[in-house]
Amino acid sequence: GRHRPKPPLQISRLTYDMGWGDLGAFGEPSKETPNLDQMASEGMLFLDFYAASPLCSPSRAALLTGRLPVRNGFYTTNAHARNAYTPQDIVGGIQDSEILLPELLKKAGYTNKIIGKWHLGHRPQFHPLKHGFDEWFGSPNCHFGPYDNRALPNIPVYRDWEMVGRYYEDFKIDLKTGEANLTQIYLQEALDFISKQQASQQPFFLYWAIDATHAPVYASKHFLGTSQRGRYGDAVREIDDSVGKILKHLQKLGISENTFVFFTSDNGAALISAPKQGGSNGPFLCGKQTTFEGGMREPAIAWWPGHIPAGGVSRQLGSVMDLFTTSLSLVGLQPPSDRQIDGIDLLPAILQGKLIDRPIFYYRGNEMMAVRVGLYKAHYWTWSNSWEEYSKGIDFCPGQNVSGVTTHLQEEHSTLPLLFHLGRDPGEKYPLSFVSDEYQGVMRQISAVVQQHKETIVPGVPQLNVCDKAVMVKINGMGVCVI
Amino acid sequence: GRHRPKPPLQISRLTYDMGWGDLGAFGEPSKETPNLDQMASEGMLFLDFYAASPLCSPSRAALLTGRLPVRNGFYTTNAHARNAYTPQDIVGGIQDSEILLPELLKKAGYTNKIIGKWHLGHRPQFHPLKHGFDEWFGSPNCHFGPYDNRALPNIPVYRDWEMVGRYYEDFKIDLKTGEANLTQIYLQEALDFISKQQASQQPFFLYWAIDATHAPVYASKHFLGTSQRGRYGDAVREIDDSVGKILKHLQKLGISENTFVFFTSDNGAALISAPKQGGSNGPFLCGKQTTFEGGMREPAIAWWPGHIPAGGVSRQLGSVMDLFTTSLSLVGLQPPSDRQIDGIDLLPAILQGKLIDRPIFYYRGNEMMAVRVGLYKAHYWTWSNSWEEYSKGIDFCPGQNVSGVTTHLQEEHSTLPLLFHLGRDPGEKYPLSFVSDEYQGVMRQISAVVQQHKETIVPGVPQLNVCDKAVMVKINGMGVCVI
Repeated sequence: GRHRPKPPLQISRLTYDMGWGDLGAFGEPSKETPNLDQMASEGMLFLDFYAASPLCSPSRAALLTGRLPVRNGFYTTNAHARNAYTPQDIVGGIQDSEILLPELLKKAGYTNKIIGKWHLGHRPQFHPLKHGFDEWFGSPNCHFGPYDNRALPNIPVYRDWEMVGRYYEDFKIDLKTGEANLTQIYLQEALDFISKQQASQQPFFLYWAIDATHAPVYASKHFLGTSQRGRYGDAVREIDDSVGKILKHLQKLGISENTFVFFTSDNGAALISAPKQGGSNGPFLCGKQTTFEGGMREPAIAWWPGHIPAGGVSRQLGSVMDLFTTSLSLVGLQPPSDRQIDGIDLLPAILQGKLIDRPIFYYRGNEMMAVRVGLYKAHYWTWSNSWEEYSKGIDFCPGQNVSGVTTHLQEEHSTLPLLFHLGRDPGEKYPLSFVSDEYQGVMRQISAVVQQHKETIVPGVPQLNVCDKAVMVKINGMGVCVI
Repeated sequence: GRHRPKPPLQISRLTYDMGWGDLGAFGEPSKETPNLDQMASEGMLFLDFYAASPLCSPSRAALLTGRLPVRNGFYTTNAHARNAYTPQDIVGGIQDSEILLPELLKKAGYTNKIIGKWHLGHRPQFHPLKHGFDEWFGSPNCHFGPYDNRALPNIPVYRDWEMVGRYYEDFKIDLKTGEANLTQIYLQEALDFISKQQASQQPFFLYWAIDATHAPVYASKHFLGTSQRGRYGDAVREIDDSVGKILKHLQKLGISENTFVFFTSDNGAALISAPKQGGSNGPFLCGKQTTFEGGMREPAIAWWPGHIPAGGVSRQLGSVMDLFTTSLSLVGLQPPSDRQIDGIDLLPAILQGKLIDRPIFYYRGNEMMAVRVGLYKAHYWTWSNSWEEYSKGIDFCPGQNVSGVTTHLQEEHSTLPLLFHLGRDPGEKYPLSFVSDEYQGVMRQISAVVQQHKETIVPGVPQLNVCDKAVMVKINGMGVCVI
């Protein structure tokens, strides 16, 4: 039967732009993540875990709502297959009609805290404390900058309702040396919050959303120059060290067997920032912004001593959206029944080693680009990036070029999808022959899955329509409005 | 001081065409190698271990002589940078003047056996029992075929001096189903030999050179269809299972703490055989036949319970040639002093975690294409394969294309080598700027290393000059003679 533990404390941690291939446990050739590797050896490694979008904001909105961006509004309708997020000039954000994980956990007596990047909108009505969180230390957006602080102010940092400073001004990031103490500050926030909750015997949900691996990458002095992977590796090492400290803190406080911890990332490594500021997607094709495996396959580790068997490896197809449903299941709650929820409860996979049959959908903006069913992945659309971007040196697939797959034109394959077997061909290099029995049989199955999926889609009101006057603070002279 | 254990029993196992990225421990996304992964967790994983050549015969000759192919004769001089091996039409092989590891071990009282592929020449004077081995079960060459048995006989299989049959005829390989019992036969040979040596208390050297992962890949019935990676994965799983059985056998016999075991491969995964018959080089560039990392970086694990700390990871730059010197060191012998030996003693790295400063040289045939010093790799020549081959669909870098690096013309960079930092850029995608201080400083150091290396080269008599009448059985109508 269904495992029903007493409501545990919980932590999710989500890193930014970290790729599948960035952890030693996933084959990074420098093997510089001893704490994450140990977390995996004490817990369960997910080999087939996915972001909900190849871009940050939509993936995070999906994590907290359990719903695909096309449902929760974190997508675009004014340019086909365009990814978008929430820079300062976008007025969109998470709608009140969406039910977020912390809103539900609060009803079960949980104290909810977000540390780090929110990314679900920067206007007052989107503030995390209006959407279920009790505490916040962090920023609504990326640490891009520094800006001029006239037309473009630097990104603010909040403690709960109060704006306590801005990046570069009050929270230093030295772009030249890469030095910033932010991960240490976020770590201390986490340790303090956990201590406080343990002292008061209050169950908690901590969403630790650090961002040191997002360009411009940073690390504190102690870690700078310590990685053989350069500054990106320094940032990874500091995150790895911090994860180790948090897990040890839980053990020291005696609550590790009562705390479910999950580690993953919001999208694949940003290869446009490689090699100095970008990570690795291991053997997978392309990276962030794309619906190839490199854009959405993520490192993922579940840790819960005494409950999750040590050294487990799961091939369960998982998604960040599953953390919504799984967290509810952990505390004995049901997901909302008045709307479509895409996340599934992973506990049977985590605790009993079951394999749950479920597809993975790969969207860019308003378009379902691809779908995975079992080991097969069908591309209904292929696109890396536009010729215009590519000609400017922006390359989502540097050093990779699969003819007819990593296309610079948006190419539709809806009538004859490109089909890959991800077991034999994890790098998506060899489409199956259209005339093979294998292709015919598999596509019959996949077509049915896709048709069923499309029938369930009730699109949300699009929140991220870049260049749409209705949702932009200003549109004149902004580079983002060139499609 | 130098660790001097009492002479242990020893095993080397060498697989064929298995790539760095083929083991779960090295990030293969299906994680289907539980026994090899466990071997790594009980022993030491080498992240920076290299073949001595991107092709089979030269790498194996180097393993057994401790010397680069350009010294031991396993190279070509009649076409620049041409790789070559020992098909039936080549009359070359290992020269009597070369001293092989088993010749030296024999003097120390070891019984030496080779199981599987020899590949150091098929003529009588090259027979392994003429070069130090006491026993042989296997074949001089690949299991290519079936041949017509008139102009081209099938490859023979030997037990010691006796030819006991031929592949396809007496030792079945079903090309249609992929079924062959060869790995099981090789496994049983190994278990029997170990049992016999243990019973008679005789120290032994076992060179277990299985080849199921070389196209046409095969597996026995029990393993066929069990991998999500297809038939190649079935072969890997059977090798993994066999390694587990051998290690368990050593433990059961009570000699595991007296047996040094090393697992590695002879060259990178053959991407020309992918996806159905070829493996994975993980995040590295290109594969077999090339001097990019995918062609020569190998999975490598050292196992010796009670001596090697469990779970160790080494960044020591290692080479298959080091197994020569390391094995001698294990039994208290010195390498020959009358010739240049390229292999170093890895015991300080394995037992004491030391890092020994040494370069890695990447040759194709008669040309030093590249050199690695520390984390830097300089390419003096770049070449994937010829336009002529490429236009026929032969691709050593499928899906990969790094402009100016994966060139189809042989391009010389001797005056300004292409320089990569393999820590920040393991995929060799971003050459350093020629005008950077980093480039200037590093190249000064590398140039000195290369100059010193070239001064030590006393070329061997080339044994593999394809199309040279002097070394070919026949040259008419052979495809191999088209350069």
